[in-house]
Amino acid sequence: MPQFSFESVNIDSNARRGVVTTPHGKVNTPSFMPVGTSGAVKAMTAEDLESCGAEIILGNTYHLYLRPGEKLIKEQGGLARFTGWNKPMLTDSGGFQVFSMQELLKIDDEGATFKSHHDGSSHRFYPEKVIEIERDIGADIIMSFDQCVPYPADRELASTAVARTYDWAQKGQNHFNKLDEENPTGIALFGIVQGSTYTDLRKLSAEQIVSLDFPGYAVGGLAVGESKKEMEDMLGCTIQFLPEDKPRYLMGVGYPEDILMAVSYGVDMFDCVLPTRNARTGMVFTSKGPLVFRNAEYAHDDGPLDPECDCRVCRRYSRAYLRHLYNQHEITALVLATYHSTYFFQNLMRGIRSSIEIGEFDLFKKEFLAGYLQGN
Amino acid sequence: MPQFSFESVNIDSNARRGVVTTPHGKVNTPSFMPVGTSGAVKAMTAEDLESCGAEIILGNTYHLYLRPGEKLIKEQGGLARFTGWNKPMLTDSGGFQVFSMQELLKIDDEGATFKSHHDGSSHRFYPEKVIEIERDIGADIIMSFDQCVPYPADRELASTAVARTYDWAQKGQNHFNKLDEENPTGIALFGIVQGSTYTDLRKLSAEQIVSLDFPGYAVGGLAVGESKKEMEDMLGCTIQFLPEDKPRYLMGVGYPEDILMAVSYGVDMFDCVLPTRNARTGMVFTSKGPLVFRNAEYAHDDGPLDPECDCRVCRRYSRAYLRHLYNQHEITALVLATYHSTYFFQNLMRGIRSSIEIGEFDLFKKEFLAGYLQGN
Repeated sequence: MPQFSFESVNIDSNARRGVVTTPHGKVNTPSFMPVGTSGAVKAMTAEDLESCGAEIILGNTYHLYLRPGEKLIKEQGGLARFTGWNKPMLTDSGGFQVFSMQELLKIDDEGATFKSHHDGSSHRFYPEKVIEIERDIGADIIMSFDQCVPYPADRELASTAVARTYDWAQKGQNHFNKLDEENPTGIALFGIVQGSTYTDLRKLSAEQIVSLDFPGYAVGGLAVGESKKEMEDMLGCTIQFLPEDKPRYLMGVGYPEDILMAVSYGVDMFDCVLPTRNARTGMVFTSKGPLVFRNAEYAHDDGPLDPECDCRVCRRYSRAYLRHLYNQHEITALVLATYHSTYFFQNLMRGIRSSIEIGEFDLFKKEFLAGYLQGN
Repeated sequence: MPQFSFESVNIDSNARRGVVTTPHGKVNTPSFMPVGTSGAVKAMTAEDLESCGAEIILGNTYHLYLRPGEKLIKEQGGLARFTGWNKPMLTDSGGFQVFSMQELLKIDDEGATFKSHHDGSSHRFYPEKVIEIERDIGADIIMSFDQCVPYPADRELASTAVARTYDWAQKGQNHFNKLDEENPTGIALFGIVQGSTYTDLRKLSAEQIVSLDFPGYAVGGLAVGESKKEMEDMLGCTIQFLPEDKPRYLMGVGYPEDILMAVSYGVDMFDCVLPTRNARTGMVFTSKGPLVFRNAEYAHDDGPLDPECDCRVCRRYSRAYLRHLYNQHEITALVLATYHSTYFFQNLMRGIRSSIEIGEFDLFKKEFLAGYLQGN
């Protein structure tokens, strides 16, 4: 079984072109992970994801733990085999879902108690428990249980969350190491930095988490409502404390312009529901920016969603057709729109990687944004 | 532009292996048409349909007339181009939808008035109007406006419907011929035989419709609730009056066993929502019969939907995974189940065609049913 590793193959200013190796294969970075919440990227098949060029997808621990349950996934050979994807996967820690839930019952220094959105049953997540769930689910990369605070958060809450995130990272890592000694899996456990929008807390959290020596680091608690400037400031003040020889993952980001910004700071991995969730509401991403294709103005438009896109949806279907299908509540509309936007994001990442390889990331970023900010 | 034609290339007892040529290409018969109500087969893309081996799909005139409207479809180059399918298509006459609607306001000798299920607006279908709508939609094969009666129907109602269906077929054909002389399209207009479950009315309707010399004939008003024996009896007593040199289309059928029965009588074309509609309720067709894959008994089943199927769903995904996705309301479950069942029906038709070619249709039918009736 291949061991987890990260190799940075090109650097262009701070932007990095790397390769993450996992038990299920290699991932070229910078990489965008489509979100497969319950074990499928909504409205996509594994074949669709492959043909878009996705190399890794994300599963949500909170959802998979509740349904179908980590024991069933383990029995079925782990998440990659269960889902038919059979390629690299990552699971989040469930923290983001639990702490943003209406049904959060109790949070203390040891963990969090919450109600299932399915049946109201009560459940508790704590660091060791989350590690066990994630090991059973069996993704290639798993995340430490962290406390993510909403935006804005007062300093006291942010500070408490940083302390808990550190404590939980240690507890989780100890438990992970113990289990992995008994039963090696090849799974890599990443640490998560918190600190809300406080520069000193971000520095403290980064130093604490990095001191634990994880094989990869995530910047958490961003893209939760703060401005783009705050996001950039917090990313900048955090990433300087993350080691260069480990992959860096900016969680829950984001818009194409955010990804380009973050790559320029040296981020390697991203995930976000935007391309898929927005597609299901009638909006896709294009080289000229977002396109609300459900709108009446496209009723007679026989052009593709994105004239510059070479995906199979843009090569075959018109805006007029997709608008009609969307407004008739046809599942096919969601399938096609999701495919295009997922392809668009993967294509963006291909462009980013190529440009770093030839030392022209800044030019790529400038040219992409010149088109993207034009509007449809 | 290729003219419409039908060639019967092999005959095995009464079963026929033929080729229908249309402006958009050839269709090998016996053929099963997936139903693309509003211009898409629900939860499928045109690529999916191609890779299943579908050669022709059906659109519903009632739905397409209301949304997006036949004028928009015409402006966008006709149904095949609008939908990106670009292969043979057939539209029904809207009669079945109108006459089975809750919102049927009035039916008389001239036509039918109904309310739109979208906005309650009032609309009227009559033979000439339906021809104009279907010509604008622009499928390769279009159907005469007929009166389909529910089951059971008393003799008087059935008799009236036969008379109207004949009258409307003449009116529609006259209008079609006039328009086609002015502006030739290559479209073929089929006639429809009615007669409910009355042998003599079936004979009368068949003789009346055949006297009008259409390029193809449909048997309508079956698969509306009658028993399988009644369906077979009515098909048998109708088909003997249909000319051998024209394609025969059994509308709205059906289950695999019904298709095999009807092929043995010499039917060439079929359509039905069963494979796609049932897939969206958690049931697929397999070589061992229907499988309600959403059921709890498949929660841990790591086998494919159909171990004898070589479709890309069966080669990649387990029952346990599909059941999980279905129960989480994942669109992907509907996409995958629809794909499998559509492939299953197309594969059945491929088997039927091959068996007729080598004069072994009866053996094929017997062997298929031996497996199919076994149950999962």
